[in-house]
This record gives sequence, structure tokens and C-alpha cells, in this order.
Amino acid sequence: MLIREASDEDFDAIWPIFHEVASAGETYAFPRNTTKEEARRLWIEVPRKTFVAVETGEIQGTYYIKTNQVGPGGHVCNCGYMVALSGRGRGLATAMCEHSQRVATELGYKAMQFNLVASSNVGAVRLWHRLGFETVGRLPRAFRHPRHGYVDAFVMYKWLQS
Amino acid sequence: MLIREASDEDFDAIWPIFHEVASAGETYAFPRNTTKEEARRLWIEVPRKTFVAVETGEIQGTYYIKTNQVGPGGHVCNCGYMVALSGRGRGLATAMCEHSQRVATELGYKAMQFNLVASSNVGAVRLWHRLGFETVGRLPRAFRHPRHGYVDAFVMYKWLQS
Repeated sequence: MLIREASDEDFDAIWPIFHEVASAGETYAFPRNTTKEEARRLWIEVPRKTFVAVETGEIQGTYYIKTNQVGPGGHVCNCGYMVALSGRGRGLATAMCEHSQRVATELGYKAMQFNLVASSNVGAVRLWHRLGFETVGRLPRAFRHPRHGYVDAFVMYKWLQS
Repeated sequence: MLIREASDEDFDAIWPIFHEVASAGETYAFPRNTTKEEARRLWIEVPRKTFVAVETGEIQGTYYIKTNQVGPGGHVCNCGYMVALSGRGRGLATAMCEHSQRVATELGYKAMQFNLVASSNVGAVRLWHRLGFETVGRLPRAFRHPRHGYVDAFVMYKWLQS
């Protein structure tokens, strides 16, 4: 597996993954009906950098990194990760999260924060814990799940340097 | 005191308040050197609505309301409040926060979240508690204070409807 920075041409391969994840509405705070153009803005243009995970020539995963809050909060970054259904169970999320922590440190960030991890997304919560993130907050009913209704969401956080 | 929606012409009176608060760097996640044009974008254009608090004909406070996270998080709003130094101690922040909760409900939001309340901002934390907000998270060293260095920040949250 290769993780490399995304180019403009990669977006046609990123879009099906984004659409699959966003339209399910179970994990990310993106509208389920996000258009391709809006997805490009949210995933490529707004973030500071965007990466893709490539296996046997195909883009199977993608992540972005951006500053979570500017000014006095500017040393904390935020990342989002998506893996194609066809690429799951092979460690891509782990590889991308570890990669993003190295990139974050290179970019000068001191911590990484996930703002809205749906509590129903048990696999993600377990994975982020394993990769050193702490649950530092619980937002009551802050995530509207398409089947479970309002569920709590976690704020997860990792200090990257000591 | 009158709280009313801000017009474009109000920004010249909002800017000294914004600049006073942002340049101190002690409470808000805005760069201390934010320019007037960038402030207009952050405080007026990006938010859904912006209000001013007027006393004896002068704008003494201002707040914005916006959607905190879109899609499955879109029922939670975020607000920011600023009071001129000359207007402090007269209940403007309380009045604006209560006003904003009514506006939030009218706009269809179900909860309000403050994402990064510096733990050193003891007065604000006490005030939000008094107005029904809970501290639901603690972000270790997430706020870089100009005198105290890295301090923890709180996530505060209130469900507006039951």
C-alpha cells in the first residue's frame, strides 16, 4: 500500500468513496446528498492537505488534514478518513491515521482532534483508542443517525508531542 | 438594551470590539492579527446570522450564530459573543446568550455547543454554567494563552429542547 498526496486528477476516484460514506449518513458530518462539486470543496479545497491510499493501482482510501481552530487553537489539527467498502478490513484506516500523525508533526501541529465521532461507530472509537486517542468529551445526542436517531458523539484527542 | 440583527453598516462599530477581543488572544480562536476584512468574513459572512446589543444608541456587544457541523450534526448550532470593554459588567453577555438560545430554537436548532472555551476564562465558564450549559469535554492544552501558555479548553453544550 502507498499513501501519497492527492492530485486534482485523483478526485474522480475519491468521489465514489466519499459518496458511499457520506450518503450512508452514519459516520461523517457531511450532508447525505452532498454533490460532487461540494465534496471536492470539502475534501480537497478546504483542508490543508489531502492524501490517498493506493493498493494495486487503485485508490481505496483517502484522508484530509486541516487546522481545527485558528489563532490560539491553531496548534491542533483535525483529520477525516474514508475507506472504500471494497478496501475494508485490511488496515487502511490504521495506516492512514498513523501516516496523518507523522504529517501533522511535520506540519508543526502539536495535537490532533476528532470533533464528532458518532458513539454508534464502535469500530472507529476502538481503532482511535488503539492508536492513542483519548475520549475527552461526550456530546449528548449531537449526531443524528439514520436508523438509531439522535446518538451521543465523542470528541477524541491526542497530544502528538510531549 | 436592544438586541437586533446586524446590518452591513454596523460592521464599523463591531470591528473595534472584535479587534479588542481578538488581539488580546485570551478567549477566542481567532488570530490576534486578524484584519478588518477577515473579521467581517468570520463574524458576518460565514455565520448564519449576526446580532448587535445596543445601549443608549451605541453598539456595546455582538454575537453570531451558525451551524456547528453540517449533515448528521446539523441540529447543533454554535455561537460566539463579544462585549466591548466599556460595556462589561452590565449583563450584556447574559442577555445575548439568552437571546441566542431563543433565536436558535426559532431557527430549528436543538442544541448549542461552544467548541473551545479556554479554561483560564473563568468568568465565561461560570456564566455559561449559570445559563444551563454543561462542560461535556476537556481538551488538554488545546488553547495557547498569551501569558499562561498552553491551557486546557472546555467543550460546553446545552440541549435546547426536551
